[in-house]
Amino acid sequence: MQSYKAPLMDIKFLFNDVFDYYGHYQKYPEFEDATPDLVDAIFVECAKFCENELLPLNQTGDKEGCTFDNGKVITPKGFKEAYNLYVEGGWQSLSHPIEHGGQGMPPSLGMAKAEMMGTANWSWAMYPGLSHGAMNTVQSHGTKAQKELYLTKLTEGTWTGTMCLTEPQCGTDLGQVKTKAEPNGDGTYNISGTKIFISAGEHDLTDNIIHIVLARLPGAPKGTRGISLFIVPKMQVDQSGNIGEFNNVSCGSIEDKMGIKASATAVLNFDNAKGVLIGPENKGLECMFTFMNTARVGTALQGVCASELAYQNSLLYAKERLSMRSLTGKKCPDKVADPIIVHPDVRKMLMTQKAFSEGGRAMIYYTAKLVDDIEMAKNEDERKAADDRLGFITPILKAFLTEVGTESANHGLQIFGGHGYIKEWGMEQIVRDVRISTLYEGTTGIQALDLLGRKILLTHGRSLKDFTKEVLLFCKDKSMLSKNPHKRQMNKFIWPLSKGVANWQQYSIRLALKAKKNRDVVGSASVDYLMYSGYIVMAYFWAQMAQSAYEKLAGDVENRDFYRSKIKTAEFYFDRILPRTKSLAATMMADPKTLMQLDEELLSFL
Amino acid sequence: MQSYKAPLMDIKFLFNDVFDYYGHYQKYPEFEDATPDLVDAIFVECAKFCENELLPLNQTGDKEGCTFDNGKVITPKGFKEAYNLYVEGGWQSLSHPIEHGGQGMPPSLGMAKAEMMGTANWSWAMYPGLSHGAMNTVQSHGTKAQKELYLTKLTEGTWTGTMCLTEPQCGTDLGQVKTKAEPNGDGTYNISGTKIFISAGEHDLTDNIIHIVLARLPGAPKGTRGISLFIVPKMQVDQSGNIGEFNNVSCGSIEDKMGIKASATAVLNFDNAKGVLIGPENKGLECMFTFMNTARVGTALQGVCASELAYQNSLLYAKERLSMRSLTGKKCPDKVADPIIVHPDVRKMLMTQKAFSEGGRAMIYYTAKLVDDIEMAKNEDERKAADDRLGFITPILKAFLTEVGTESANHGLQIFGGHGYIKEWGMEQIVRDVRISTLYEGTTGIQALDLLGRKILLTHGRSLKDFTKEVLLFCKDKSMLSKNPHKRQMNKFIWPLSKGVANWQQYSIRLALKAKKNRDVVGSASVDYLMYSGYIVMAYFWAQMAQSAYEKLAGDVENRDFYRSKIKTAEFYFDRILPRTKSLAATMMADPKTLMQLDEELLSFL
Repeated sequence: MQSYKAPLMDIKFLFNDVFDYYGHYQKYPEFEDATPDLVDAIFVECAKFCENELLPLNQTGDKEGCTFDNGKVITPKGFKEAYNLYVEGGWQSLSHPIEHGGQGMPPSLGMAKAEMMGTANWSWAMYPGLSHGAMNTVQSHGTKAQKELYLTKLTEGTWTGTMCLTEPQCGTDLGQVKTKAEPNGDGTYNISGTKIFISAGEHDLTDNIIHIVLARLPGAPKGTRGISLFIVPKMQVDQSGNIGEFNNVSCGSIEDKMGIKASATAVLNFDNAKGVLIGPENKGLECMFTFMNTARVGTALQGVCASELAYQNSLLYAKERLSMRSLTGKKCPDKVADPIIVHPDVRKMLMTQKAFSEGGRAMIYYTAKLVDDIEMAKNEDERKAADDRLGFITPILKAFLTEVGTESANHGLQIFGGHGYIKEWGMEQIVRDVRISTLYEGTTGIQALDLLGRKILLTHGRSLKDFTKEVLLFCKDKSMLSKNPHKRQMNKFIWPLSKGVANWQQYSIRLALKAKKNRDVVGSASVDYLMYSGYIVMAYFWAQMAQSAYEKLAGDVENRDFYRSKIKTAEFYFDRILPRTKSLAATMMADPKTLMQLDEELLSFL
Repeated sequence: MQSYKAPLMDIKFLFNDVFDYYGHYQKYPEFEDATPDLVDAIFVECAKFCENELLPLNQTGDKEGCTFDNGKVITPKGFKEAYNLYVEGGWQSLSHPIEHGGQGMPPSLGMAKAEMMGTANWSWAMYPGLSHGAMNTVQSHGTKAQKELYLTKLTEGTWTGTMCLTEPQCGTDLGQVKTKAEPNGDGTYNISGTKIFISAGEHDLTDNIIHIVLARLPGAPKGTRGISLFIVPKMQVDQSGNIGEFNNVSCGSIEDKMGIKASATAVLNFDNAKGVLIGPENKGLECMFTFMNTARVGTALQGVCASELAYQNSLLYAKERLSMRSLTGKKCPDKVADPIIVHPDVRKMLMTQKAFSEGGRAMIYYTAKLVDDIEMAKNEDERKAADDRLGFITPILKAFLTEVGTESANHGLQIFGGHGYIKEWGMEQIVRDVRISTLYEGTTGIQALDLLGRKILLTHGRSLKDFTKEVLLFCKDKSMLSKNPHKRQMNKFIWPLSKGVANWQQYSIRLALKAKKNRDVVGSASVDYLMYSGYIVMAYFWAQMAQSAYEKLAGDVENRDFYRSKIKTAEFYFDRILPRTKSLAATMMADPKTLMQLDEELLSFL
């Protein structure tokens, strides 16, 4: 019963008008093929694949789930066929380097593809999606031989890959990793240990799975400084890439989860499985962190996907379901009642979903440009500038967009009333599926510590200063004092945005000073601070979209309603969503005392 | 893996110290048996039943769900045995009138029982719980014969009852009800139609089910003024209460739902089922509304139950799970890492759960006294005063407590990290189960319209004035100008509470004025207004609990830490939760324009 149409007009608006993506692509000769015509054609084909092949498997996949049978995992009906189509269509290789079988399209294009796939069927999209982590690892840290052996197959999609980090005793705190790697003396290692929560850790879509595994070498230092990375295939592979013996990576079970049921979450037992070291000894975590940001932005996307799918479906329902009359008088006197979209509270939920979907999409596509810049940078300064920006904005995207995406999914369920709670309609699935997004790839709490602790305090606010400089420059450029022809209309956005940014800077400084006296200030303020930052950042993108829309409307453009809708949604965002910062400002500045003063034993008297 | 201990110390604190329940019971000779000794003994026994019989069935019931087999519904393993124990123990009849087989204990005591049952196993508790609606209907509107025939069996628990309101085309908008009632000329009616979402509509716990059905008589006026109430048993019943023929009430299917899977949600087809009219013709909705408030308070309780269960379990986990080190230095240097409870963000989630569980409990137990007062009132003035207060506070309790209960359940899942997403731990079940609570018995949006539209605007703010008068009297009594021996300590609560109440009054007046010009102001502000009200109301109860705790600590009391914990949780509430009103104040006062200005067609461009 779920329906989905890829929001191509919105994606093109971001590509063409808001972020000048084609100007951006032209900076890099590698991307000369990424012309508007080709990109548009890719979008259209991708939309078809997602709407026609992936969406129909979303609810059936949830219902059927994965089956575990004596170490084997059977994915839901249709998953393998869709995967084959995906590989045949060259989708997996789209935005990977040509030298290993990729098509050399920009990574940012991969993000648009990921959005459509993830909205149509997040669980399915995780199988090819997880490969990107493994591919990035091999690409960045692998030897030439490792790249030739593994990267090509991963790029084609012949094999998939995983990231094996978590163990039963540790997820966030990877310093506790126990999995061992014993050298065999021939350049290979015997890997032994148990990894849990391994997405796509076992499945029937491909003949082999390449695991990237965190493990400890003998005598390695304790904690995070003694962890190395290994490539451990499920099936052994000879030098030519032929599959050999089983490599003792066995799937002990798959998890019975709240959602993303069609995505297999495996317990993997490594029992003297043969692996090779990738990257330097004991530098496994550093190596992983080089593309942690990209993985996290990929998870942030799940929030946008859930919001979009929930929005599309609840909008259709709100136009059809008849209940009560508008308080301002009958809107459909010929019907037994008015459609619920006439009720302001339903409209509020819909507008909130719209604001989060489109605002979140803008935040993602802005960030995707940074990923292009990092990969293509011609010198270290350029690379570092883009990397710093990415590192700053990533925790905001990951935590904020998954939190508001979860909210949006819940609005969708709520708009359906009791029917939202019934599986048939597919709305409760969206809520269950998206609920994982604030947990994996670092919980909201971890993202918040990363933002406030590492990205703000540790850099003495440098990244924040750089970013707010960009925002304030935009404000100045569009303000009443500028030559912006739309400055009068933009004033309603520029003023609160400037004020919000100024407060953001102020609060950051005040928190930094407080944190010097009491380190618990960081953890006590961090999540509220992150959400505060998220609302300000999203306001910046809504202001940019409004400006672009005014510019389009000033010309002789088609689809004028589209741009009007943008502006009015921006107004809604500034009026109804941005004021959430008021409460967050109050709570993040509150003394940690009231949080921490209660002894553990005093929390319960049972 | 879920654990639960009934929070008896907290319940007794409310009964003895905060609300002086025994003084309240002494007002009514009918309640002379409700002495502290007896009530405490009932609490202890009830706690045992819930902890030992109901809790173990909570996760198994979720996993197994109800089975539908050719019209029959089989409840999960153990449900029937637990129900028999419940009936044998006299629990169903506890707080019902003696004349129909009840034990005559106060309704408020039934609320405490319902809390423990509902926390241990909400799905199970719905079977006996739904009976109360049917019992109240027969009690209030039935003839003597109807009471003798149906009420006695329902009170014993020999049969259960349901409320059959919703139909496929309408839930909220009951004016659209189509089910027909054709008179047979002998005082009976043939009822035909389809009812959906009927909780406990079919099951195997009892031999008969008594349905209270909304239907239309021939020629009845359209809309809500043409609906009558009927008693329609699943099996026909003779004058002596013996079960006869099947009465053509067939269960067409049960819903596959997000949660409360062990509670059967039935589609019921009435095919010339025999029924009798209860209450006056065409006054069905009015009759139902007489106890709508009690039913809604019973649903509000689900928020508290979910919050409590989530809190208890996440607190245990947070003390055990080791991850990372406290930013203020190692707390458990002998362990591989510190327990996550040392992290301020985890602590914040726990404190939020604690504040909502205990604050919500206080709101419920305050309200339960009003229900006693209504049932026992010696004159119409007293009854009306209690009924007005109940009518005012009910939508706040229903919507606010289910919303914050859902939040609390989600914090529980979040504290468990990835493990919270796995069924085994039982945390995701709490999230799924509680998610229905903001939908049934009137969605949050409907409660909000009831509060702002009917209870505030229609009464010109009378009920609000009455309630705020009570709060301001409390503030005055405990203020720095009073003789309250704890006034210095209480000042930190009294000042923000008084200010909050003053703002609440101000905003209400301003909204009333705005609504005169534009009726969409009501729906546009209502949900934020309701949540705003909820936070203020809960602050009042936290202030009362703090005052009571200070009073206890001034004496020579045991368990001093319990009272200290109360005060510190009150401080947390005022510091970290109450400031949420700031954003709500801004958004509820925003112009409806930004919500409503966008034409329906401009909401999407797909």
